[in-house]
Amino acid sequence: MTLAHLQHLIQNLYGAKDSRRGVEGTFMWFMEEVGELSAALRGGKDPAHLALEFADVLAWLATLANIAGVDLEAAIRAKYGDGCPGCGRTPCACNGAEKP
Amino acid sequence: MTLAHLQHLIQNLYGAKDSRRGVEGTFMWFMEEVGELSAALRGGKDPAHLALEFADVLAWLATLANIAGVDLEAAIRAKYGDGCPGCGRTPCACNGAEKP
Repeated sequence: MTLAHLQHLIQNLYGAKDSRRGVEGTFMWFMEEVGELSAALRGGKDPAHLALEFADVLAWLATLANIAGVDLEAAIRAKYGDGCPGCGRTPCACNGAEKP
Repeated sequence: MTLAHLQHLIQNLYGAKDSRRGVEGTFMWFMEEVGELSAALRGGKDPAHLALEFADVLAWLATLANIAGVDLEAAIRAKYGDGCPGCGRTPCACNGAEKP
């Protein structure tokens, strides 16, 4: 599944609702899912449940991108397509204390 | 770019650092990027900057998935591959007040 396919899938499922809700309300839903992901990562018990929490965060991120008119694949290629944006290398050779 | 390609790209760039940092420290980096995305969405000024903040959140989500051993494409297909997980339809026909 490509990132464009993901954005289309979420647009087809939820686009009508998303456009009514707007970016602020959607961000609050996204954050709720981020919290659930945190709990699932901390628990470390059920791999299937953990995977579903990742899916929810990714789906809400795709929703936010759809509302904001952002192409996730183009964004990833622009930022990470030529190696680490910090040092330009693959693998990253930035100082360990630096971001990322 | 497929979700698997994204996970491999991030693994090649940062896998060595990620495995040393662990899930807790990585989650804190992820949250910092989520905060920057919030600021960029609120500002609503520069589309290129906004896209890069989406890229960062997505990259750190891929990092978390790599550390946790989660296949993002399989997770999305499991949760959203057969229509809305709430009502089973595309587009979603859940009550507007319900999640999502």
